[in-house]
Amino acid sequence: MWAAGAARRAGLGLGLGLGLGLGLGLGLAAALALAAWRRQRRPVREVLFFPSRPSCTEAVLVEAAAEPGAAARPCPCPLPQGDCPLSRLLRRLLSARRSLEICLFAFSCPQLSRAVQLLHRRGVCVRIVTDAQYMGIRGSQIGLLRHAGIQVRHDQEDGYMHHKFAIVDRRMLITGSLNWTTQAIQNNRENVLVMEDAEYVKLFLDEFERIWEEYNPISYKFFSKDSK
Amino acid sequence: MWAAGAARRAGLGLGLGLGLGLGLGLGLAAALALAAWRRQRRPVREVLFFPSRPSCTEAVLVEAAAEPGAAARPCPCPLPQGDCPLSRLLRRLLSARRSLEICLFAFSCPQLSRAVQLLHRRGVCVRIVTDAQYMGIRGSQIGLLRHAGIQVRHDQEDGYMHHKFAIVDRRMLITGSLNWTTQAIQNNRENVLVMEDAEYVKLFLDEFERIWEEYNPISYKFFSKDSK
Repeated sequence: MWAAGAARRAGLGLGLGLGLGLGLGLGLAAALALAAWRRQRRPVREVLFFPSRPSCTEAVLVEAAAEPGAAARPCPCPLPQGDCPLSRLLRRLLSARRSLEICLFAFSCPQLSRAVQLLHRRGVCVRIVTDAQYMGIRGSQIGLLRHAGIQVRHDQEDGYMHHKFAIVDRRMLITGSLNWTTQAIQNNRENVLVMEDAEYVKLFLDEFERIWEEYNPISYKFFSKDSK
Repeated sequence: MWAAGAARRAGLGLGLGLGLGLGLGLGLAAALALAAWRRQRRPVREVLFFPSRPSCTEAVLVEAAAEPGAAARPCPCPLPQGDCPLSRLLRRLLSARRSLEICLFAFSCPQLSRAVQLLHRRGVCVRIVTDAQYMGIRGSQIGLLRHAGIQVRHDQEDGYMHHKFAIVDRRMLITGSLNWTTQAIQNNRENVLVMEDAEYVKLFLDEFERIWEEYNPISYKFFSKDSK
């Protein structure tokens, strides 16, 4: 019995060891393969030109929000679905896994706001810098984003904080002429460059950090009407 | 006499031939060296961040306008001189030798307008696309540029022609958030990417040509007040 028990335990131990070793080995191999794929694949270099016709981006957002493997129900709205500049921009943003810096003059597009909130809920560290005078315009998403717990900082300057860029995972730069408003997306001639380019990412990230620190709320000045 | 004359003529011919050959050879060598230098030098990759402090750009413009070798007189104005984002943008534009496409929402900066007029006078083919609603704002340079003989086309759409890019010699793309206005240059947080990147240049040039054709004046619609 002892011998049989010891042999069973030894067999179990061997099996567990082998299984663990195999599992670790496979995990390591997968991680190495992913790293190699990331190194070898061509960096993203894309330009999105707007206007983007009105279209349904529900599938992109539901797919990103759903648990892996969950089937998305088709949206019953009458708008056309499929690929368009807005859906491509959404997908690029939704690829974030760790961090998202946003530096934006005006932000009122509900779909882009949903994507940012979704990333925040997913644990992505989202930081937003925006323009003080435009964050209060009708339809602005800044209040909602703050309410969702996302950090937002704004200027206190006479000039505009007129940048329109975002940085995904300190890896991908999204920049151009486009403010994230439905008016601009559906009606204006606009461009957005998407670049996985370490040199440009670094320059824009440095600019973001500079502004983030300059707009630190501890430096905000508050004036009463009498003191003006 | 004949022999001496013939020998002199032969010597002269030989000298001329040698001189011509040497000159052609040197010219060819210089052209080849220039082509090799262009191939080998690192393509321009730059980001200009604004605001740009008020500064004197007279030296850049006078240097570009002057005959080669002519000494520029120092400007007596009290503004600081030297390198700044605006002077760098000016220098990039002034490097144009053949063509300049400009696609711009708002254009009211006098220095940039002078640079564009200077290029036009130098024989560079300049084409401008702009926004109909913003080309009439106070200080707009569009009227002056048209008056100087530069081709300008504009939209007739409800949306804005909101691009802010230029292409130098079908070689260098200049694009970002910056409208070419003094307000934006001196007061706003803005970015301008400068890239010698054939892939991006082609995409933006295609966009320019698309818009240029769409905004062809033969397609403009004119409504009388009664017909509205």
